[in-house]
Amino acid sequence: MPRLLVSGFTISLDGYGAGPRQSTTDPLGAGGERLHEWLVTTAAFKRTHSAAPATRGAGDESGPDEEFAARSMTEIGAWILGRNMFGPVRGAWPDESWRGWWGRNPPYHTPVFVLTHHARPSLEMEGGTVFHFVTDGIHAALDRARAAAGSKDIRLGGGAATIRQYLQARLIDEMHLAVAPVLLGSGEHLFADIDLPALGYTCTESVPGVKAVHYIVARA
Amino acid sequence: MPRLLVSGFTISLDGYGAGPRQSTTDPLGAGGERLHEWLVTTAAFKRTHSAAPATRGAGDESGPDEEFAARSMTEIGAWILGRNMFGPVRGAWPDESWRGWWGRNPPYHTPVFVLTHHARPSLEMEGGTVFHFVTDGIHAALDRARAAAGSKDIRLGGGAATIRQYLQARLIDEMHLAVAPVLLGSGEHLFADIDLPALGYTCTESVPGVKAVHYIVARA
Repeated sequence: MPRLLVSGFTISLDGYGAGPRQSTTDPLGAGGERLHEWLVTTAAFKRTHSAAPATRGAGDESGPDEEFAARSMTEIGAWILGRNMFGPVRGAWPDESWRGWWGRNPPYHTPVFVLTHHARPSLEMEGGTVFHFVTDGIHAALDRARAAAGSKDIRLGGGAATIRQYLQARLIDEMHLAVAPVLLGSGEHLFADIDLPALGYTCTESVPGVKAVHYIVARA
Repeated sequence: MPRLLVSGFTISLDGYGAGPRQSTTDPLGAGGERLHEWLVTTAAFKRTHSAAPATRGAGDESGPDEEFAARSMTEIGAWILGRNMFGPVRGAWPDESWRGWWGRNPPYHTPVFVLTHHARPSLEMEGGTVFHFVTDGIHAALDRARAAAGSKDIRLGGGAATIRQYLQARLIDEMHLAVAPVLLGSGEHLFADIDLPALGYTCTESVPGVKAVHYIVARA
């Protein structure tokens, strides 16, 4: 059965997966972009995100940052995203004009199941990405992702609130978290009210990269 | 003026400075001892804690874990401790028999100002450590520590609740935090309800050690 994985999800030293005041121009919230410096400078990220905004610095193509970035993008057969990762629209969809942050050819290239309370027809993009809007909860989204993923794994993209829901239901098999050396102070906290050991998770590995430290958290 | 420093304060990957259910036999709470593996195996710690309980493994005497351990114990002219770091007794002192966790010769060798709501005579130990019990708050404790420290710095030992109080009053100049690759799930959270950037703090340095990652958080 496909595993449900979190990969490359980055939190600040004080535990936030996004900064405060998320908006169309600031999708990761105030200061949130600094979280992903380790990722957006990797060659693996630049290959898969042709419209990548960041070209600062050069990735160390053989270091842990590079390896974790490359690993996170392979062998994925389906994605699950919280609605706020798909876009800034809240409440009922006013129309179908919002088609995600990523332009015509999003970096997923698989079916992507978007959790929402508001139904909307599936949306086929270039490059094999198809957004499906799931209104009947996290278990239903996982069932559909499993059916779509075949022999590959499923990646849960986030955000923090969605990961917390799947953790509390003990549905995540393994998480690769990156901790960036920045402080955000407020925003979406990944571990708030989550007792990971009580849910059966342990930290099995820690690997320092150049711009972040990588941790594997797995269910025993 | 002496700086107020936090040094070698260790938190789990999920942000806890101590585990749940602290007790006489488990002063760091359930699982809390695993936080300090990076520290208790260093040569610097073994030199200063003659009664050190841990002799597991050998410290890497030239690595960052060793350097941060050594640095945290030098040039300190006074300490401030929250009462729960001094011992497990809560409420009024039933008598004066509790004299700290550390035996006759504690590793401080300076005046130590213990924050408490319950007055008690000062307590002179071997090796230069004198415990003073301060009942009029964190500012009063800091004033007394400044007067005692002379040209050296003051170290705020913890616990998490005491550090949070001093952070919220913007009285801490610099913190060295170590993050251990363990999950505690509950207990005393260091950053709960603390917006460090709003208080003027930034993360200025991150240095991976073998058993923990070290961060410097400083007031701008």
